[in-house]
Formats: sequence, structure tokens, C-alpha cells
Amino acid sequence: MIYATRRATFNAAHRLYNPVLSEEENYKIFGKCSNPNWHGHNYVLEVVVAGDIDPATGYLIDLKILRDIIEEHVISHVDHKNLNIETEFLRNKIPTAENITIGIWNQLVNRIPKGKLYSVKLCETENNYFEYKGETI
Amino acid sequence: MIYATRRATFNAAHRLYNPVLSEEENYKIFGKCSNPNWHGHNYVLEVVVAGDIDPATGYLIDLKILRDIIEEHVISHVDHKNLNIETEFLRNKIPTAENITIGIWNQLVNRIPKGKLYSVKLCETENNYFEYKGETI
Amino acid sequence: MIYATRRATFNAAHRLYNPVLSEEENYKIFGKCSNPNWHGHNYVLEVVVAGDIDPATGYLIDLKILRDIIEEHVISHVDHKNLNIETEFLRNKIPTAENITIGIWNQLVNRIPKGKLYSVKLCETENNYFEYKGETI
Amino acid sequence: MIYATRRATFNAAHRLYNPVLSEEENYKIFGKCSNPNWHGHNYVLEVVVAGDIDPATGYLIDLKILRDIIEEHVISHVDHKNLNIETEFLRNKIPTAENITIGIWNQLVNRIPKGKLYSVKLCETENNYFEYKGETI
Amino acid sequence: MIYATRRATFNAAHRLYNPVLSEEENYKIFGKCSNPNWHGHNYVLEVVVAGDIDPATGYLIDLKILRDIIEEHVISHVDHKNLNIETEFLRNKIPTAENITIGIWNQLVNRIPKGKLYSVKLCETENNYFEYKGETI
Amino acid sequence: MIYATRRATFNAAHRLYNPVLSEEENYKIFGKCSNPNWHGHNYVLEVVVAGDIDPATGYLIDLKILRDIIEEHVISHVDHKNLNIETEFLRNKIPTAENITIGIWNQLVNRIPKGKLYSVKLCETENNYFEYKGETI
Repeated sequence: MIYATRRATFNAAHRLYNPVLSEEENYKIFGKCSNPNWHGHNYVLEVVVAGDIDPATGYLIDLKILRDIIEEHVISHVDHKNLNIETEFLRNKIPTAENITIGIWNQLVNRIPKGKLYSVKLCETENNYFEYKGETI
Repeated sequence: MIYATRRATFNAAHRLYNPVLSEEENYKIFGKCSNPNWHGHNYVLEVVVAGDIDPATGYLIDLKILRDIIEEHVISHVDHKNLNIETEFLRNKIPTAENITIGIWNQLVNRIPKGKLYSVKLCETENNYFEYKGETI
Repeated sequence: MIYATRRATFNAAHRLYNPVLSEEENYKIFGKCSNPNWHGHNYVLEVVVAGDIDPATGYLIDLKILRDIIEEHVISHVDHKNLNIETEFLRNKIPTAENITIGIWNQLVNRIPKGKLYSVKLCETENNYFEYKGETI
Repeated sequence: MIYATRRATFNAAHRLYNPVLSEEENYKIFGKCSNPNWHGHNYVLEVVVAGDIDPATGYLIDLKILRDIIEEHVISHVDHKNLNIETEFLRNKIPTAENITIGIWNQLVNRIPKGKLYSVKLCETENNYFEYKGETI
Repeated sequence: MIYATRRATFNAAHRLYNPVLSEEENYKIFGKCSNPNWHGHNYVLEVVVAGDIDPATGYLIDLKILRDIIEEHVISHVDHKNLNIETEFLRNKIPTAENITIGIWNQLVNRIPKGKLYSVKLCETENNYFEYKGETI
Repeated sequence: MIYATRRATFNAAHRLYNPVLSEEENYKIFGKCSNPNWHGHNYVLEVVVAGDIDPATGYLIDLKILRDIIEEHVISHVDHKNLNIETEFLRNKIPTAENITIGIWNQLVNRIPKGKLYSVKLCETENNYFEYKGETI
């Protein structure tokens, strides 16, 4: 079993905000991340697929195919978007990096033709990264 | 003469939009960067100061002082902000990386106590960087 | 279960030296890393916490809280310090990256309020990294 | 149990080409990667070893020893080489990153004197990485 | 005057070889870089354009236009190519990073519609970079 | 005229301390950087040489020759050393990054056989960089 990673990037606006709470409560929890005028990030995404090598090609999966799947099912939904307003797969979720990471997993998990989705990693800033492997506690 | 650089980062939302043009004209010029729902970036800023070394300290300038000047006059105006709405020094400017870079120069140029502001560099994405040295053509 | 990583940096001096051995034996084992006049590094630390997401916040843990825990229990003990002389949690340990990594784990393992410490990673140079997950062989 | 990683780099030429298929079929599968005039990469290799710490040294393994093993058994076979023609351990393999990664594992797995080979990671471009841990499906 | 940089990457094979010299003389000058079976690199290219800002757009130049010019006149000639055999703009040149850098400058210098080509930077390995500004000694 | 850069790294201990001042005055100026027990850094050095290309080789200078000059005249004097005690070319200098950068320039300026030393850059931390070009004010 080999692991292959494809990296992609997107730029988006968001705001950390729980609509059942007041602005003051949101500010207390999220600080400047709850700014009602939004802020944004350059997100770096890494999608890891695991499986065995096809002897005819030496590939686990053609990473250009994986790139296109990521483009269609993830990047086109988030790049240059407002994650609170425009991203269907984050509807009714607070767009923290944790929820974005799991949302991306759910977009991809049934769409990898060869190999199996192993991990989704998301870097929100150079100091904060997140990873989801589909595990439950 | 030695050059000393201090690096800082900030996260912000913006939209490329010229208010004298229609939405359609803005879209034609700026594409998805004109999304009315905003998008955003992790900006990386490098401020370069030039001058001679103080023999008593071996410093051009204490970079902690430079860090605090950058924090007060730049970062606090742009970090977790909407650059179109909330940043006074970009008022009436389209917040392209070019205009942000020059705006940051103008915020800093008269506030460096030792040495002289030499250059402001701004990285908007991993593929696009900008630099301003106060030169006129 | 999601994994969240917080990155931090510190600068320190150290020397690889086993006090039960002679200077010559230390030099034979550790080479220039045993220089009695010390050398040092910019260490990059990554702390990985695992757990489930709080639905009220969308966070595993507020990474600003994790940052403050790392600052109080790790960074303040090692940044701009001599790891052989000044770091209590490395007392009687040879300050190899391996021992520093495990020492940092021990500083943090009972102090993460939400989620569970999953991994401590330490980068000593651009070619040498270390990771500890609390596993025993 | 601690994990120690040593990073190394090499530059090589290759071509993705299955000799049992025609040039046209190779082009259909591999695109410009099947260019008969070759192309090449700066590969970044990370070798991860796992084991316990020797109390006399504080080391899992002296990484200079690991560096020399990687140099002798991997780098000298691939650096500034043509991977299709000149690398014995890739003979009769299509030199995809997947097959190079597994070939490197096989070169190293029985040659680590302390600790156990845990993982081989190979970065072929800034967007494509691969990892092998000796697992079978 | 502002400087805008666009970054691009390409992967290529090459060989350092002066055809007027023998294989032995080439090996003496270029060492393993003269391997007749080729080797290759992931090249990182940065193209710097200088000029003033268009007040209607806030742009020096739309970097998507610059990206397309670089793609058409540089990347399509070098990516996944053999630089000794297939790249017209390097014909009769030894494809050292110095000559590639100047060749790229010549491809671009008359094709920048707004602003002026200021600099071409080329990173061949993580330790070796090159820059050309069209200067003569 | 082309510019060629060679990158190198070294690890060292130092302390910012002016011996004509008291410990208290040193602490007031340099803060934790004046720790009498030392601290240290992974320094990244970039040496830029400028000149014209030798048509016989396509090189400005063989970067392996430049690497060896840097190793002999810089790295061997600073790597795994205490910069206050052991580095002859910093004697009677406070080893700030500014003074280290100029010291490295002085070590190299008359030792480049082809081309001319153009710039010495030194990165002390990921946020602080320095450059010297031999200019006087």
C-alpha cells in the first residue's frame, strides 16, 4: 500500500460566527475572527489517497485525475468564495478550519476512482494545520 | 550601509472593485477577484530598512522596535479586516496588492527612527509578489 | 476525530555531552556537536492535538489557548536558553532533539484541556526532524 | 518509541514509459511525462526511522550514520542519473514516484543498524508527494 | 514605480556539455552534470516586471496576462522537455542555469504589454539561484 | 552581467553583549539575547556573485568552487561554534546578524576568482534577514 498526496490551494473569505449566539458572545469566543466585515486566507489543501500500484502504469492513481476531482468537487466551491455564504457543502456549519477539512473529506470520499481517500490536510495559516482521516472517536 | 528586513503576516478580506464601473465591467477586468461576497488572503509582508550600524549595539535598528512600528501602523489596520471597508490608509483605493504595498510604504516611511525605509515587499499568493521602493518613473 | 496542529519556534544553545564520559569520548560520539563552547539552533515545534469538534464553536480546541499553553509550559523554558543548564525539564538528560521532543511531550501531555495530545514534532535543522507520540515499544 | 527523519535530495532524469505498450499508448497514459527525450526533477527524500533512545547517547540513531547509509544505498544510485537506464534497483520498473519510493524502501529496509525503517517519503514536485511504510493491503 | 513578480515552475532534463570538447574534458569541467544519459530539475522561475499603476485597475499588469505570456513563450518550450535537444531558444547554448535565465529574458523582453521586464530569476536547486536584469558589464 | 547565488547553512551559539557595558545595561539593550548562558540559531547564508558568462562553460563561476570558498573561509569558522569566543573574523565585534553579515563579506570579497562579490544575505530567524553589498553611506 502506497500513499499519494496532491496539493492544491484556494483563497477565500470567512467569518467565525455561530448564528444562535449574539455578536457579543461570538466576539467573546472567536475574537477578531468574528469580524462581521469578514477576513480571509490562502488555504493549502493536501489530499492523501492510499492503495496499491497498478503494474501497467506504476501509478496508484494518475494525479492529474485526482487534481481534476479536487478541482471539480472542492476548489470550484471555495476558491475566491465566501465560505459562510457561497459554499453549499459548508451550509449550516461554522467555517472553522476543522469544519472545512471535514466538509472537503465528505466531498471527496466517494469520488476517488482508484485507491481510497486516506486523509485531508488543511493549512489555514503558517502556524495552524488540520487533518481528518474519517475516524470516529 | 546594511539592509535589515522584518517579516510579518496578516489575514484579510478584500474585493477588487472600481466603484465608477458597473459590476459587469468589474467582472470583466477582475474576474472572480471582484466577487461581491469577498475573498481573502494570508499576506506576507517584508519591510526593509537601510542604514549604518550603531557601534554601541551592533544593530542597524532593534528589530523589536521595527516590529512594533509595523504592528501599530500596518498590522493593526489590516489584520482580520476587510481592506475595502475598514482600512483607512486604503480609502478610495482599489485594494490590489500594488495599492496595498504602496499604502504600507506611506504608513511607514516617516516612522522609522533609525535607518531609512528602503523597500516594502508583499506576497499575496505563493505565485504573486510585489515590491515598492518609493521610486517614481 | 480531527487533528489540529499548532506551530511555534524557539532559539536555544546546547551541547551534546554525556557527563559520565570524558571529553574525548564525547567528541568521538558527538563530534562538533559536543563543542564545549556550545552551538545552537532555531527549533521549529509542532504540537498535534486530537479529539472531536465542539458543535457550539466548530473548534477542536481554540488554538490561541493551545498557543498559550505551549508558550507557558514549553517556550518560556527553552527560548533564548541554554538547554543543558537552564531547562528544568531536560535536567540530567543529554539535550538531543530526541530528548527535547520527549521532554516537551511530558510538559504538555496533562495540560491540554480539550482533545488529547497526539504528537510532538521537532525540527532541529532543515534535514533532521523528530516525532514522539507517547508510544512505548 | 521515537521517530527520526533524515532529509536528502537528488536530481535525476526519467521518462514514464511501459515498454510493452506503443509510444501512442504510452503518450495516452502518461502524456508529456512519456517524452522520449526525457525530463527530470529535483526529488526530496525523507527517510523515517523508529525505535527507542540509547540512554548513553540520547540518540535513536546517529543521523550522520543514517545520512551515510542513504548516500551509499540510495543517492549514489539516483543523483544526476537517468532512472530508466542507470538505476539498478529500478530495473524493469516504470520509474513513477510510487515505484521510486518503494525501490528506496527496499534499498534501506535491511540496512538500518539501530531502529527500524518506518517510512520513506518522496516529493517529486511541490504538488505531488508519496509515502511507503512497507504495508501490504 | 512598482515591481510585480509572477512565479512559475517547470520540470526538464538537461546535460552540461560543450560539443567542441571531448567527453573527458566535459567531465572534467562539469562532473556528473555532464552525464550523457541526462539528469533533470524542477526549475522555479520568477519574472519581475516594473512600471506604474493603472489608476483604473490598481494593477501594474494583470498577472493572469503575465502568466499567459510566460506560459506561451517560456513554459511551453521547456516544461517536460530536454533543454539540449528540444528548446529552440537554447539552441547552440550549453543549458546552464545562467544561459537558461538569459534565454528566458530574451523570450520575454519584448512581449510585456504594460510595464517593463525588470528581472528574471531562476532557481535550479534549493542551493543555487540565478538572476538576470539585462545589464551589460 | 548575471547574478549567481549559492546558499549555505550553519548552526552557532552567540550572545549579544557589549563588554564595555554592565550586565544590566546589556540586558536593557538586548533583552533575552544577552543571556550569559548563550542561545543559538540555524543561520541561512546566501552569497551572490555577479559577472559575465564564460562562453566555454556557460558558467559565471562553477558554484562548486564558490561552495568550497564559502566552506573554507566562512562555514568552517562559524558552524557549531560560539561566535563570541571562537570566530576570529568577529573578534571585538558584537555578533549581531548585521556584524556577522559584514564579517562574512570581508572574508569573501577578495577570494572570488571569477565574478565579483555582489551581496551577502543572512537569515537569522524566519522573521529577520540582513543584506550587505559593500556600500558605504
